[in-house]
Amino acid sequence: MKKMIGSKVALYPMPVVLVGANVGGRPNYITIAHVGIADLGTISLSMGKSHYTNAGIVENECFSVNLPGVDLVKETDYCGLVSGRKADKSKLFETFYGTLEKAPMIVGCPVNMECRLVGKVDMPSHDLFLGEVVETHVDESCTNGDKIDFSKVHPILFAMYDKSYFKLGERFADAWSVGKELMK
Amino acid sequence: MKKMIGSKVALYPMPVVLVGANVGGRPNYITIAHVGIADLGTISLSMGKSHYTNAGIVENECFSVNLPGVDLVKETDYCGLVSGRKADKSKLFETFYGTLEKAPMIVGCPVNMECRLVGKVDMPSHDLFLGEVVETHVDESCTNGDKIDFSKVHPILFAMYDKSYFKLGERFADAWSVGKELMK
Repeated sequence: MKKMIGSKVALYPMPVVLVGANVGGRPNYITIAHVGIADLGTISLSMGKSHYTNAGIVENECFSVNLPGVDLVKETDYCGLVSGRKADKSKLFETFYGTLEKAPMIVGCPVNMECRLVGKVDMPSHDLFLGEVVETHVDESCTNGDKIDFSKVHPILFAMYDKSYFKLGERFADAWSVGKELMK
Repeated sequence: MKKMIGSKVALYPMPVVLVGANVGGRPNYITIAHVGIADLGTISLSMGKSHYTNAGIVENECFSVNLPGVDLVKETDYCGLVSGRKADKSKLFETFYGTLEKAPMIVGCPVNMECRLVGKVDMPSHDLFLGEVVETHVDESCTNGDKIDFSKVHPILFAMYDKSYFKLGERFADAWSVGKELMK
């Protein structure tokens, strides 16, 4: 039986990321789960226009996307609770820089992407930043050869309705494969 | 130890959805995992420009986003393998329509969103469709009151690197809460 619950975005769970940007010359990190893949090489971030980090992204024309593991859930949640205007959140983490030089990344996150800002869509309440991934850094312990093994990343997944953080479950099927039997 | 693996989008896992649109007056469904949340009420879909479904979205100015459960993994994978140009994929599912009247939805998917097309960003290789959610339909068995309980939805999560479908794991922490102890 279907129930109508109004106009609710129900595209969950989404991976939780820590977005890094220099603001006023200092690294800052903010927690975002309203993210997306916009093109084969491009990530989208939906960020409330009033956030402290937005100006840093525009100023430096770059940002980082860091995937925390479940071990960082307290720090990750904290970075969504407290503005960089009020606290120096960079003290929570060890920061490193890469190719773009101005996109701060978190050593303790198993996956880090450096993104060049390639667009900004002015949405009614949010800035939609589009970032082309320039380089990806991964903990060697989370790879199989050059591929990232997400079962080793232990990402944090978010669903907004009951304010949940979930773990990733088991790998159970092969994409572009398990449906082939219906092609007969 | 960090390893650089080049410019790889590593924003996974993402929820797998079946996007519905009428094409030539007939319901069609395509599997997409390169999705996103673009604003509080708006979803983004990144779809290769050559897909059969894109013209239907533009023509009808609407589409649906359906979240399949793991029980539909074969059908979901199949809808990403075969073009609507070659097969009538609507025969796999029971279709229903809602408020927008022209956005076909799948009864067998526990969550369905009707979206009005509000924008299209021309990305280098993909169309980025922006859809405002107009109404959300949920199986009553997947709700707690008016809230969707994603542990009951059993969504399919996708990671591109090793062509994986994952299940959702356990709920392990409260968002906007677990990090509060670091505020002291």
